[in-house]
Amino acid sequence: MKTKLLILSSFVGFAFLAQAQEISNGVMRFNELRKPIYREIINIPEVNGYQVLKCDFHTHTVFSDGQVWPTIRAQEVWEEGLDATAITDHIEYHPHKKFVEVNHNRSHELIEELSKKNNVILIKGSEITRQTPPGHFNAIFIKDASSFIEDNANEKDWEAVMKAFEQDAFIFWNHPGWRPNIEGSYEWLPFIEELYKKNALHGIEVINGFGFHMKALDWCVDKGLTVMGSTDIHNLIAHDYDRSKEYVHRTMTLVMAKERTPESIREALKAGRTVAWASKYLAGKEENVKNLVNACIKLLPSHFTQENQNGTKTNFYEIQNNSDLYFELELTSGKGTQKITLYPMSSQLISAEAGQQSISYDVTNAYVRSNKFLNISFSL
Amino acid sequence: MKTKLLILSSFVGFAFLAQAQEISNGVMRFNELRKPIYREIINIPEVNGYQVLKCDFHTHTVFSDGQVWPTIRAQEVWEEGLDATAITDHIEYHPHKKFVEVNHNRSHELIEELSKKNNVILIKGSEITRQTPPGHFNAIFIKDASSFIEDNANEKDWEAVMKAFEQDAFIFWNHPGWRPNIEGSYEWLPFIEELYKKNALHGIEVINGFGFHMKALDWCVDKGLTVMGSTDIHNLIAHDYDRSKEYVHRTMTLVMAKERTPESIREALKAGRTVAWASKYLAGKEENVKNLVNACIKLLPSHFTQENQNGTKTNFYEIQNNSDLYFELELTSGKGTQKITLYPMSSQLISAEAGQQSISYDVTNAYVRSNKFLNISFSL
Amino acid sequence: MKTKLLILSSFVGFAFLAQAQEISNGVMRFNELRKPIYREIINIPEVNGYQVLKCDFHTHTVFSDGQVWPTIRAQEVWEEGLDATAITDHIEYHPHKKFVEVNHNRSHELIEELSKKNNVILIKGSEITRQTPPGHFNAIFIKDASSFIEDNANEKDWEAVMKAFEQDAFIFWNHPGWRPNIEGSYEWLPFIEELYKKNALHGIEVINGFGFHMKALDWCVDKGLTVMGSTDIHNLIAHDYDRSKEYVHRTMTLVMAKERTPESIREALKAGRTVAWASKYLAGKEENVKNLVNACIKLLPSHFTQENQNGTKTNFYEIQNNSDLYFELELTSGKGTQKITLYPMSSQLISAEAGQQSISYDVTNAYVRSNKFLNISFSL
Amino acid sequence: MKTKLLILSSFVGFAFLAQAQEISNGVMRFNELRKPIYREIINIPEVNGYQVLKCDFHTHTVFSDGQVWPTIRAQEVWEEGLDATAITDHIEYHPHKKFVEVNHNRSHELIEELSKKNNVILIKGSEITRQTPPGHFNAIFIKDASSFIEDNANEKDWEAVMKAFEQDAFIFWNHPGWRPNIEGSYEWLPFIEELYKKNALHGIEVINGFGFHMKALDWCVDKGLTVMGSTDIHNLIAHDYDRSKEYVHRTMTLVMAKERTPESIREALKAGRTVAWASKYLAGKEENVKNLVNACIKLLPSHFTQENQNGTKTNFYEIQNNSDLYFELELTSGKGTQKITLYPMSSQLISAEAGQQSISYDVTNAYVRSNKFLNISFSL
Repeated sequence: MKTKLLILSSFVGFAFLAQAQEISNGVMRFNELRKPIYREIINIPEVNGYQVLKCDFHTHTVFSDGQVWPTIRAQEVWEEGLDATAITDHIEYHPHKKFVEVNHNRSHELIEELSKKNNVILIKGSEITRQTPPGHFNAIFIKDASSFIEDNANEKDWEAVMKAFEQDAFIFWNHPGWRPNIEGSYEWLPFIEELYKKNALHGIEVINGFGFHMKALDWCVDKGLTVMGSTDIHNLIAHDYDRSKEYVHRTMTLVMAKERTPESIREALKAGRTVAWASKYLAGKEENVKNLVNACIKLLPSHFTQENQNGTKTNFYEIQNNSDLYFELELTSGKGTQKITLYPMSSQLISAEAGQQSISYDVTNAYVRSNKFLNISFSL
Repeated sequence: MKTKLLILSSFVGFAFLAQAQEISNGVMRFNELRKPIYREIINIPEVNGYQVLKCDFHTHTVFSDGQVWPTIRAQEVWEEGLDATAITDHIEYHPHKKFVEVNHNRSHELIEELSKKNNVILIKGSEITRQTPPGHFNAIFIKDASSFIEDNANEKDWEAVMKAFEQDAFIFWNHPGWRPNIEGSYEWLPFIEELYKKNALHGIEVINGFGFHMKALDWCVDKGLTVMGSTDIHNLIAHDYDRSKEYVHRTMTLVMAKERTPESIREALKAGRTVAWASKYLAGKEENVKNLVNACIKLLPSHFTQENQNGTKTNFYEIQNNSDLYFELELTSGKGTQKITLYPMSSQLISAEAGQQSISYDVTNAYVRSNKFLNISFSL
Repeated sequence: MKTKLLILSSFVGFAFLAQAQEISNGVMRFNELRKPIYREIINIPEVNGYQVLKCDFHTHTVFSDGQVWPTIRAQEVWEEGLDATAITDHIEYHPHKKFVEVNHNRSHELIEELSKKNNVILIKGSEITRQTPPGHFNAIFIKDASSFIEDNANEKDWEAVMKAFEQDAFIFWNHPGWRPNIEGSYEWLPFIEELYKKNALHGIEVINGFGFHMKALDWCVDKGLTVMGSTDIHNLIAHDYDRSKEYVHRTMTLVMAKERTPESIREALKAGRTVAWASKYLAGKEENVKNLVNACIKLLPSHFTQENQNGTKTNFYEIQNNSDLYFELELTSGKGTQKITLYPMSSQLISAEAGQQSISYDVTNAYVRSNKFLNISFSL
Repeated sequence: MKTKLLILSSFVGFAFLAQAQEISNGVMRFNELRKPIYREIINIPEVNGYQVLKCDFHTHTVFSDGQVWPTIRAQEVWEEGLDATAITDHIEYHPHKKFVEVNHNRSHELIEELSKKNNVILIKGSEITRQTPPGHFNAIFIKDASSFIEDNANEKDWEAVMKAFEQDAFIFWNHPGWRPNIEGSYEWLPFIEELYKKNALHGIEVINGFGFHMKALDWCVDKGLTVMGSTDIHNLIAHDYDRSKEYVHRTMTLVMAKERTPESIREALKAGRTVAWASKYLAGKEENVKNLVNACIKLLPSHFTQENQNGTKTNFYEIQNNSDLYFELELTSGKGTQKITLYPMSSQLISAEAGQQSISYDVTNAYVRSNKFLNISFSL
């Protein structure tokens, strides 16, 4: 062994990168087996001067029915590159209550300092978990959940939401279509209408995890409510989401904010400048989705013209997706490439008949209503 | 939209595989974004008639200083293909005690039923967490931890371990070299000697997570103690281990057992039929490591002979690794391929000068002492 | 720098695994950036005593219209774990003929020695490339293609195939549905019927690359022809196949052979013991597909019984896929888990109502006719 | 089967994303098994107003000793996001000459049109392949290689390079340390000195594939030659490079050019504005490497201050890597985080004692001489 050591060290030149293994004090460390830890940057360009903040305002911990300590939630959002989050444990539901303290502020408190250190904006929140209908509501930007109502009797529904309203919370209705077997639950209920009229309902969770509640998008569009997307995560992000696919991220709300501050997020939510993003899919109001998509996709000037046998000419273009979003485009007017798939941070080669002013595409992964895709045009 | 629907459906032939997306009741499900959930089979052949069981007997939950609810631990071992596990929360250390019940049996109890349903063997365990030295001991196959001693004063060390001894536990010393700055702590201490003489120490955790405590391997070999490998996981397996590499699994003890039962595991542990496995690395007693490696690696008969210009002949062979283990081999005697890397479930082409009876290799990722690799021979 | 070197080397214990970087003679080698090179083992158990050989008998090189030198084809099959292959360059089509020799035996010859060294069975073949209809035919186990007919006039079609027939080749019709716009081309043509009657047609390429020619499966079943699957690769396997997905392999023919020899392969092809395999999909004669699937899937004895509130009992089972194939199962009779997805080398937990004798599933990725899935039963 | 179809189609809502499978004309297409094809965008910000072009000017095809048709090279550079490339087949070495035309312009010609369509800049080049010493030289921006000299006798070495010089080529010396066993070959030879004096040597290939020729970096720095990095690829990029690691790209020259044109590339090469890039490693002149690194790494203003028990304060910062490069940093002056690993498009959390003006790091993967790392400072 001795001899081998000497031979080997003659190969060692000078300081190398992080070693695969190292020995100190009789312990060999297998560094190469560790997962590299870093904060991912989700690449989305500014949209008309707004920063696009990545936010998930619907998450759970062991303090309600989640399966992790709050620190795991803080770690997940840091690593995944989110800008802002909220722990929204249920007020009315505590299956672990025999073993874990029931305290509506606790999960938030336990990661407040850590989130500051991590440069992640932690918004205080709660899930008001009424029976369905009317179902569940998330209240964020709350001040104190200690007096929120645990009794989930229907007659207390109004009072329950008002607890959040009184704290000037931003309130959104969660996953409205989650109980398809309860007749009438996925409707614009009188209770919802009441909240809406009182300005006590500000948004709807249009995408919850892997479920796109299509009617909810139409309600947001028609009634001017804010489109929200969130995970409602109870298990691990690493367990639920197939992050081996480069385009898969947790479901979230993209918030177009003036600054990266809680105040700016709140302003943007109130103003409705959001898009719900579920990896391959986008849902939002037409204006917001259009601005976002236009900031990401760039058609370069034609770099090549081909003379065709029939006397026509075809121009070739590079179309770039300068973001970590994903797009599928389908030609709707003009003569050119029929279908284009734009993976994150990539481009495709497309062609169009020469002599056209513009060409239009449906973005078939971007919904601006339950039955309508975003349509975009490129000047040629 | 209507028209498009009709055109599309003409393409639909008959029942396809699981759809990427589907809509029902106004909710579109993005199934393709979900991580596929299954129980991985870790491929290791039988070793001389023994099944090779994959076991991790050192894990934590929120009931001591872990960051997950016990169900996450159950889920992780199921998905990763482990046969047996134990939750070993600390007896003496409960940083979450203001919020979580202190009950030494609870984390085990909470996943007993689930583990049965999952066909995972759950062994009852505890970590007896004394100050260093002497440090920490895991006791598994215990019956009830309710009377274990929380007071960690050194004068109670003996009594603390005896609580487990009285329950006929299998006791192993954890990560002996973990505190390099405490002079003398990584030594064969009198306290350890006492336990050993009384037959109250049965094994040592030679590999803890990513740390190989090299001296501990020698102690196991010299004193006939069982070699253990385990994660000591507090965070998530998915966070700590780089499972994007095909050869990375959690650190574990490979137990060569007669049957897949708790009794057989105990018998094998007592008999010392184990190898500690840390993804690319193996550590154990020579006999065990040799038997394991020989069961995995197979040299096929030579399929090709090349006549060399100098009149000699070279035989070509395929060498197969029929397991999910990983091996690096380095020639120690005979004339043939100098270095061989065997990735999981793969083979390499090697050559050897014709006319030799055998050829020998050090398996440079398999330690049978702190300074000795396993050496294996192949008949040619 | 000097000082750093000394400090570092004190960390170096003894011989480590393959270094990420090493310096010798003033050149630093970045070994860690290299793709690891090895021969993958595709895990498929024996089927009723037959070895399941992985074969691709339809590939191209620069000697016809392929884009690679023959050595790349040899390298690809070795790394991907195939047992046997054939280079089948076109007889009648040589787009590179201004720059590359036209010689129908050359591409085979250039890798004969290499294939022997690699322990890969190289079968001599050619693609007889007639106009459509009748289209293309692969002839394998040929002896010499030097006198094959380059003139592709239809009147020479018969003579062209006879050149292979005279050499006692195994002949299969390639991708019969490849030209959907030629009316009548994807039919059981008189020319085909003639070949069939003369016993000069032995199989049909039911799966070509990513295309499953569904009618061809029925013809094979009804007329007793051998089911073939192959790549018809012109570009790189690494370019065409998404091998980042664990279940994706090149399309191939699984041949159930007595031995791993050219003779056994020929015998098995003549006897029709094949299944066409396209990663997630299988197609073949019912008996063959059934035997293959039964060799891969294993239902373990129930390990757990749950008493239900209504007095019934539910048994839990582990169902294992001991292969690198992929399966989707859908319940067709009995009461139990509706859908089961079996990823390569993994298991799932399923349940069935107690008291049943058996339970049946359609294997919805395994076609035994164009409109029929394999159905399998498990004894409970 | 009929029934199943009807039930299924009721789930189909409206136009979905690209289907996993589709049937038309009796052929089922398994689209999901195909590798997605797109042009990757390698993310590197502008450096002081220069675009950073990704270039590989050393590649081979079947027209010398490479293993692929030229179209594969065109495809590889397009998919990998390179801006410019050259086919540099050997003038003096044609192992396939029995089968493939010997024509020094052919491989370039065969992909000229394709490269234009692909928007990839194709520079005409050749490898002048003399015996070692002096070894090999790449000449790019040549006009016609038809009269280059195939005779590799040493007495023709000068004349051979002059053929390129006369065409006003950009000439660089390839992999100077490639033959360590030839005494004196890896030295600043008289022949090289002659070329240098005549201004017929403009750069040196400091990184060739996975080999960093360390002395060559010093020569470039000391003599004002341009630092080149290239693949010298003969096999497939997908075979040689481990592109499953996110930070692995082919080895290349990063050219800081005014515009994305051949002329700008030439100007930048002549001006020496390059960095050789081998995935994790950079090598170049200090000024160039420093400008590049400073364009990629950004230290955000401190977001958090921690009061320590000893009265001091610690500031926390987010340090971002806004590029697809990779960096390892090691503290050289100031008090702060010792080691920082910056993966592509990610950030890390670091800390520094409050009250410091700046802090400095060696970038231990960025060489500015054979024995010197780039050192960078951050203002705090």
